[in-house]
Amino acid sequence: MAVNFTVFEDFKAVDGVRLGVAQSHVRYANRDDMVVIELAEGTNVAGVFTTNAFCAAPVQICKQHLSASAQPRYLLINTGNANAGTGKSGYGNAVKSCELMAEKGSCAADSVLPFSTGVIGEPLNMPAFERGIPAALENLSADNWARAAKGIMTTDTLPKGFSKQADIAGSTVTVTGISKGAGMIMPNMATMLGFIATDAGVAADVLQAWCKELADCSFNRITIDGDTSTNDSCMLMATGKSGVMITDAASAEGQQVFALLKEAFQILAQAIVRDGEGATKFVTIRVESAAAQKEALDVAYTVAHSPLVKTAMFASDANWGRILAAVGRSGVQNFDLDKVQIYLEDVQIVEDGGRCDSYTEAAGAAIFKQSEFTIRIQLGRGDVTEQLWTTDLSHEYVTINADYRS
Amino acid sequence: MAVNFTVFEDFKAVDGVRLGVAQSHVRYANRDDMVVIELAEGTNVAGVFTTNAFCAAPVQICKQHLSASAQPRYLLINTGNANAGTGKSGYGNAVKSCELMAEKGSCAADSVLPFSTGVIGEPLNMPAFERGIPAALENLSADNWARAAKGIMTTDTLPKGFSKQADIAGSTVTVTGISKGAGMIMPNMATMLGFIATDAGVAADVLQAWCKELADCSFNRITIDGDTSTNDSCMLMATGKSGVMITDAASAEGQQVFALLKEAFQILAQAIVRDGEGATKFVTIRVESAAAQKEALDVAYTVAHSPLVKTAMFASDANWGRILAAVGRSGVQNFDLDKVQIYLEDVQIVEDGGRCDSYTEAAGAAIFKQSEFTIRIQLGRGDVTEQLWTTDLSHEYVTINADYRS
Repeated sequence: MAVNFTVFEDFKAVDGVRLGVAQSHVRYANRDDMVVIELAEGTNVAGVFTTNAFCAAPVQICKQHLSASAQPRYLLINTGNANAGTGKSGYGNAVKSCELMAEKGSCAADSVLPFSTGVIGEPLNMPAFERGIPAALENLSADNWARAAKGIMTTDTLPKGFSKQADIAGSTVTVTGISKGAGMIMPNMATMLGFIATDAGVAADVLQAWCKELADCSFNRITIDGDTSTNDSCMLMATGKSGVMITDAASAEGQQVFALLKEAFQILAQAIVRDGEGATKFVTIRVESAAAQKEALDVAYTVAHSPLVKTAMFASDANWGRILAAVGRSGVQNFDLDKVQIYLEDVQIVEDGGRCDSYTEAAGAAIFKQSEFTIRIQLGRGDVTEQLWTTDLSHEYVTINADYRS
Repeated sequence: MAVNFTVFEDFKAVDGVRLGVAQSHVRYANRDDMVVIELAEGTNVAGVFTTNAFCAAPVQICKQHLSASAQPRYLLINTGNANAGTGKSGYGNAVKSCELMAEKGSCAADSVLPFSTGVIGEPLNMPAFERGIPAALENLSADNWARAAKGIMTTDTLPKGFSKQADIAGSTVTVTGISKGAGMIMPNMATMLGFIATDAGVAADVLQAWCKELADCSFNRITIDGDTSTNDSCMLMATGKSGVMITDAASAEGQQVFALLKEAFQILAQAIVRDGEGATKFVTIRVESAAAQKEALDVAYTVAHSPLVKTAMFASDANWGRILAAVGRSGVQNFDLDKVQIYLEDVQIVEDGGRCDSYTEAAGAAIFKQSEFTIRIQLGRGDVTEQLWTTDLSHEYVTINADYRS
């Protein structure tokens, strides 16, 4: 029941990136569950990771390996098991998986970045890695993005991809990426993962700054139920094979590459919301005229996480009192309510803190019935704008999460 | 489907307090919807109120009147309309309701405390007050607590009450109270209300300090969905008619009265959770060995508000990974996960940050199947303990809130 979701099929290869996919039987038979991404020498990689204090063993190792070298050679991804909440033995298994990959790929172990997603708290199935890594290496191909998009899925109902080319500084630059996650959600079959590659060259410091900035307007601005997984990771890879080299983010080419990447990040992040558990609506929460980023986000997340607002979305009931009350409890200090305006798309529902005279239930209901709409909240306190994307709370969400392990 | 809920019937009168109840037709016909609580001269009153920035007109006026005098004569409560999000005219209507009450009750308008609960954003039905106030005054009685408990209900399925007597300093001291709310929840038919009276005399400064302290271990420690209403109010009234007078909270009598009040506050608050929307479980979240109150509460609320933990409760699925992940994302700084222990009742599920060796799914499931249990989380950082009470997230919750206005 994904919302306005079209499966992406037209993947362009990224020169310098090859992908291998295997059935390794980490947890289930007869499905692709292991993906190896091979990077050409000299590829710069940047990443952002979950802020959950219980971050999983592979996340810890990823961070270490990235700080040892910004030019890793392999990304190793398994589904079926998150290797989280597994203590010292889980850490040891994640190290072991990197060593296996390094041995088969003839590189140093710290040139391997490991990613796991799936069940929490169960020991990683190491024989699966011994099977899966060689099998994935055997089918390494630059044209394997579509199969890899499926190979990293857990409870996603659809694979998520993006690919686009642009002429930049006289060369064709390609950006291609895949993501997974049916929420942020699901510490059990957990995790949001994003892997975005470009054949532009991007200096390591620019790439790391971009990765953070891009995640902050995409993967860090989506929420389904407010639950952050132990394994969330988003990786940005720049091979440089196109010949375009970005060392200055502010340059014309830099801005062009950044714009292309931003589109990739946002579409891949939004795809996760569209495929969110039980989602029937795709809703943008936009907070305008805030005094600071923090208060804009506090308001946006409070509205997005309110079970009352979310059930009203599900019911197509433009219950503005619930939105108003969520704004009111968001913790903004010295809030002047008389300056608050709230719109559904272009229909004003709250004017100067009270119900707008021109508002009608019929006008509100017409918008809440749409599968996709924007709730716009103006605080009248400054000039900061933030937005995020979320879904409704449906019976299907409860069913999925209540029945998941039973 | 309230959880382990017995309707309280044995109300003891509180000398100095009389209650009148009327059908005023604020919104619906044929139901008690207006309650007047008359207080003897010299009764001290203290209150705590919603922290929602959009607090309703009656809440604003309550605070003003209480700061003008700690000895009001009447509490005026209506259901059916929250008089919130109603702007200047709503404020004017709340003032008018106090003036009407003052006229009929022969007191100053600022000796009246108004409380409203019900629909947000609709004009208050003033003719209802002209009908209801005289009608309520006609049946003023010290024995009207049970009828008043029903008269303040909105979507509560059951009335909530408490009454108990104790011999203190040679006198019989009575504490009697009522509450309403089927969550904190429901900014539409909104609001948690609590009214607790004692015939002990309590000095105004002690009473105000107690009211805050008592709310912080009762009404401020319950959560159903994290939504805080615009109208929440909890009032503590001390008539002094028993002859027992508390001027020193630390005295033996002071501690005895406080203990009685604490029982009243906690039972009335817990009753709201037991009657929570769609509740099938009553769950205590207890955080121990925290370094500070804030982090203890951050962890407790993050677990209590996690839709994944709540759906697992509903499913009777002891999904410890979800609890662990919620603890991990609660924002505690410099978290040493190796010191975290988690118990379901006495069954340890997480030991030193990982799955406890002795834990079995069967042992966890046996506890999650109970209608009432405690999740105990030890952070290993200090000696602060906090606890709160919550419910699960069921299909019925979605049904109630998705269908509420349709």
